[in-house]
Amino acid sequence: MIKVALNGYGTIGKRVANAIMLQPDMKLIGIAKTSPNYEAFVAQKMGINIYVPQESVKSFDEAGIKVAGNIEDMVKEADIVVDATPNGVGAQYKELYQKFSKNAIFQGGEKANVADVSFSSLCNYNEAIGKKYIRVVSCNTTALLRTICTLNKLSKVEKVRATIVRRAADPKEVKKGPINALVPDPASVPSHHAKDVNTVLKDLDIITMAVIAPTTYMHMHLLNVTLKSQVSKEDVISQFLNTSRFLLVRGKSKVNSTAEIIEVARDLGRIRNDVPEVVIFEDSIYTKGNEVFLMYAVHQESIVVPENIDAIRASLDLASAEDSIKITNTSLNIGKGYLI
Amino acid sequence: MIKVALNGYGTIGKRVANAIMLQPDMKLIGIAKTSPNYEAFVAQKMGINIYVPQESVKSFDEAGIKVAGNIEDMVKEADIVVDATPNGVGAQYKELYQKFSKNAIFQGGEKANVADVSFSSLCNYNEAIGKKYIRVVSCNTTALLRTICTLNKLSKVEKVRATIVRRAADPKEVKKGPINALVPDPASVPSHHAKDVNTVLKDLDIITMAVIAPTTYMHMHLLNVTLKSQVSKEDVISQFLNTSRFLLVRGKSKVNSTAEIIEVARDLGRIRNDVPEVVIFEDSIYTKGNEVFLMYAVHQESIVVPENIDAIRASLDLASAEDSIKITNTSLNIGKGYLI
Repeated sequence: MIKVALNGYGTIGKRVANAIMLQPDMKLIGIAKTSPNYEAFVAQKMGINIYVPQESVKSFDEAGIKVAGNIEDMVKEADIVVDATPNGVGAQYKELYQKFSKNAIFQGGEKANVADVSFSSLCNYNEAIGKKYIRVVSCNTTALLRTICTLNKLSKVEKVRATIVRRAADPKEVKKGPINALVPDPASVPSHHAKDVNTVLKDLDIITMAVIAPTTYMHMHLLNVTLKSQVSKEDVISQFLNTSRFLLVRGKSKVNSTAEIIEVARDLGRIRNDVPEVVIFEDSIYTKGNEVFLMYAVHQESIVVPENIDAIRASLDLASAEDSIKITNTSLNIGKGYLI
Repeated sequence: MIKVALNGYGTIGKRVANAIMLQPDMKLIGIAKTSPNYEAFVAQKMGINIYVPQESVKSFDEAGIKVAGNIEDMVKEADIVVDATPNGVGAQYKELYQKFSKNAIFQGGEKANVADVSFSSLCNYNEAIGKKYIRVVSCNTTALLRTICTLNKLSKVEKVRATIVRRAADPKEVKKGPINALVPDPASVPSHHAKDVNTVLKDLDIITMAVIAPTTYMHMHLLNVTLKSQVSKEDVISQFLNTSRFLLVRGKSKVNSTAEIIEVARDLGRIRNDVPEVVIFEDSIYTKGNEVFLMYAVHQESIVVPENIDAIRASLDLASAEDSIKITNTSLNIGKGYLI
């Protein structure tokens, strides 16, 4: 059993922590958190060991949350650390992981040079095997890479032109916006997403533009992909239907929005209504010559969770890509086929 | 085992259906639905019998959803029907329930005269025992009644002045608003909620004013209650802490909004993030002489679910108030005390 420590227990961290507890080959030794908010209370209720910076011990004590030790204690005890601290903070913690010679998984909010490799399970698992520091790319980049690498199996992807409509804030965030505007993010082109895709697919011709919209549910991507050869709409549908970590939405199910995707996830009893799969609107898949068009939704809170689990296995050389993806999917109930 | 049929499978219906399946003394014989949308697909996936109006059989067949029969077949087979059809439609179906002499539970969207009694578990369970037609009051009225009847045990409630800030739409609804306005609902005073409370507490002096705000998560009530005698803040807190179907939010847990209440429900693994309890912000409880002030949040999608289950038992005289509430709470994991 691999001993995994989780540094950071926000939107991504708490989900990865839950996912680790569901793996047959991993043990969560604890999580690290800096402020005693409700997420810390939930972790305590679940019996998870909570480690805090030395200077936070007092505030946790006052809140009535039992502290297992400081973050250094946790890192020392681990075989590997998943860093889910806020953007840029992971790079500061890297020193600590190096001090104890621990492997670490970073998130997409860090610069690519924090790690030896940027990672996408369906694109470059093999490249990450044995790497001490791996960076799981961000939610939007994870979705783009899954999609591109899956289409690439049909026919070589030569060009990607993508529009990303981002959610404004996560459901729990009450101080973020916009709440009544569309905001180019940024107004300059390409957006950073294209560059981030290139950290994994180095030679791909990709341009992305992004805009923020006032919603919390999911991001939406509108893609135009040029392939080397002509493919049919049916080929594309069948390729996605047969690839795990994708779900298709049928027109006849009357799921016409991100809100209804989340509602189905709730109705199916998915914990936290998480949808780590890329959810493609089947009716949006369209082909013209060598071009493929499609629209899909990306659940920003959960999409990178399976990739974090795979990255742990790649870093410690615990399993092949195929085996790791299979174990991760089974343990997290990640499907393929139709959403409903 | 009581055979329960569920007519209507939207926001309330699907939750009551799930709740019935969790009761030790009830069996869900099926649900009735008029259009084959994703909720019907989910019901089919869960193995629930789906009944439809004769004229809808074709559209369900075309969607690939198996139909068990028409609504009349379902009603005939049931001991009692829970009607969760849209506002006003329940009254039309009443004829069918009468034709087969079946007891029925209606929702708060119906006029009070649809039933023999309007119902709130904590207020008038005994009055509803053996009644053929019971109307569970709406989400806002359910919350008001629970709160008033609980305070009434401390000291007689003489007057209630309440402001209701309503959510604009449920999370799944994409065509409802407002999305950028505050809308008096209605501008005339009192709003219908006061009148609806009076269907249960007939002589209470209550005035309500309501406004709609652009959010999907929960309603919020801001109450000013005058009691017969003076009580302390501690008395009020302790009264709510010791009454099931209420949860209190501690300031130190840093849950400062409805969004964060829902996030805690997600983190705790609650199905559909449902919070059927009234959630009181502990810090908002304030007393001045005989007056009590408080603010609480109401999860509009799920708060009436336990009351529907209790109403079934009351109608068929299956259990005392105390026993029914206990069975319902245990089966649905409905708590008391602190949210987290």
